[in-house]
Amino acid sequence: MKHINIKDLALELNLSVSTVSKALNDSYEISEETKNRVLETAARLNYVPNPYASSLRGRKSKNIGVVIPEVADSFFSLAINGIESVAKTKGYHVLICLTHESFENERTILKEFQGGRVDGVLLSVSTETTQCDHINDLIANGLPLVFFDRACDEVETAKITTDDFESAYKATTHLIQQKADRIAFLSISKSLSISNKRLEGYLKALEDHDIKADQKYIIDCSNDAEQNYLLIKKLLQQKNKPNGIIASVEKLTTPIYTACKDLEMKVPEELKIVCFSNLEIATILNPSLTTITQPAFEMGKMAATLLFKALENRNFSLVKEDFMIQSALVVRDSSG
Amino acid sequence: MKHINIKDLALELNLSVSTVSKALNDSYEISEETKNRVLETAARLNYVPNPYASSLRGRKSKNIGVVIPEVADSFFSLAINGIESVAKTKGYHVLICLTHESFENERTILKEFQGGRVDGVLLSVSTETTQCDHINDLIANGLPLVFFDRACDEVETAKITTDDFESAYKATTHLIQQKADRIAFLSISKSLSISNKRLEGYLKALEDHDIKADQKYIIDCSNDAEQNYLLIKKLLQQKNKPNGIIASVEKLTTPIYTACKDLEMKVPEELKIVCFSNLEIATILNPSLTTITQPAFEMGKMAATLLFKALENRNFSLVKEDFMIQSALVVRDSSG
Repeated sequence: MKHINIKDLALELNLSVSTVSKALNDSYEISEETKNRVLETAARLNYVPNPYASSLRGRKSKNIGVVIPEVADSFFSLAINGIESVAKTKGYHVLICLTHESFENERTILKEFQGGRVDGVLLSVSTETTQCDHINDLIANGLPLVFFDRACDEVETAKITTDDFESAYKATTHLIQQKADRIAFLSISKSLSISNKRLEGYLKALEDHDIKADQKYIIDCSNDAEQNYLLIKKLLQQKNKPNGIIASVEKLTTPIYTACKDLEMKVPEELKIVCFSNLEIATILNPSLTTITQPAFEMGKMAATLLFKALENRNFSLVKEDFMIQSALVVRDSSG
Repeated sequence: MKHINIKDLALELNLSVSTVSKALNDSYEISEETKNRVLETAARLNYVPNPYASSLRGRKSKNIGVVIPEVADSFFSLAINGIESVAKTKGYHVLICLTHESFENERTILKEFQGGRVDGVLLSVSTETTQCDHINDLIANGLPLVFFDRACDEVETAKITTDDFESAYKATTHLIQQKADRIAFLSISKSLSISNKRLEGYLKALEDHDIKADQKYIIDCSNDAEQNYLLIKKLLQQKNKPNGIIASVEKLTTPIYTACKDLEMKVPEELKIVCFSNLEIATILNPSLTTITQPAFEMGKMAATLLFKALENRNFSLVKEDFMIQSALVVRDSSG
């Protein structure tokens, strides 16, 4: 079966291409009877309008692009559900592209998107992203963009974030109240604004409780699970080892629990743990994991809602539309 | 900054649009000097070729589409990594679209893709998909498609699957050897071929060990976590409750462990558990979870490799290219 184009359709109907085109676009020049005949035949022959051709005219791809580092983190899979809940009501498709935390991938994807493949973009930047020209270029080319979770502060557009500073402050204070006084902080990127805000919240909580911050308790983790396991194990074997730990990303949960098991460290007696995590499975870990749970679905939903406001009304400016949605500290057994 | 099109570029260079176009397409009619001048100016002005216009000519979107039910399952996030590892070397982008287990979504996405947005498709069908006309239409329209994991048996194209029958047979036999004789099987879809093969493997293992299958131990779960929890709890409270359980999808792990905890059932003493799962976190559950681990990355990689073979060589037929890659039974503490 060959691909049916508008010429084939016109031939089959014994009409001109222009009449068929007008009928498909619901033109007032064409009678209802003809329109129905065209639509019925189009359906029967499985005619699909070429989105490229119609995009060239209407500049509507009816797609939004979602650019995220990965999907193996439950924050992003929940945020996608929030985004899709909005896109669906608007008749839009969501095209998801992954950067795998690479700046070069992110740059290429955004460049690609400028060609008209999508009408707007939702972005959570990679850990490698330190400069934002590629994002400013996209916006300058007329594509609305909304950040969610991980933003570039210097780009002037809407940002949907969570209270990273306050959450880390709250988590640290909680561990101090649970009698931890040597608290480690595991970070993943020095360039990410959310990582830095979490680190600042941790440092401020220590300061407010007269605990001196110690560089040896602040660890930069990577994307490599095995390497993270070794770093954490080393941290937990040193003299004056920490009795509390805050992990700033979900994927550090497995290496932390594995290291504790291998070193026979009792949780929470010898080490109290809090992770930034949306893992449903946190409840069935042993001990169950205390989490900072981000409002992932809500953040995705809010970001998509703003993007569609901009798509539907060219006069709506995204510049001042920053929203911060609160995360929740969910205390479970790992912090005693 | 406005979007720079080829006319703007020609104006800036003081060349004709046709010359600029030929230079961008590396035509032999244009001198190297002019080509370099065009490319430098294009880069400086941030000119992006319109992929729609060039697609209409070359029929190459340089995208492949990946259509999957969800990303909150680690099988799919690992399979995507396998797919991207291949696409990257080919200079292709991967556009991920989610069906959320809805047939209607799947149909719309594939219809959409027929317009030229992607050059080929990798598909894992939804639990609702019982007829395959939408997939046959896509292939008939000249788009190569490869199934991975969840396939439609009646569609004649390449399928990358795992040994679902054998894995379930192996898991059931393992539980029988561990002295379980009332083994429950939790399924998610009666229409999915992989679900049925897993169920058949379970039934065959029971038969081969002279255990009579009992309908009350075969449970159809849904996408609703709370409802699944209630179903499992009910299963574990009945007279002659099971002493072994096989879950055919990863997301049943949390409701099973939660139900055992709430009912104070000892695992593995009173109930032995095996899940089809790629969760890295399986190792740190208490007890650690025995899994059937699918070769997710390899399946994604193999599916993408076949798709590119078809894209690069129009004479290559996908019809007889079926591959089955073995899953592994990883015995941990939950099955004693």
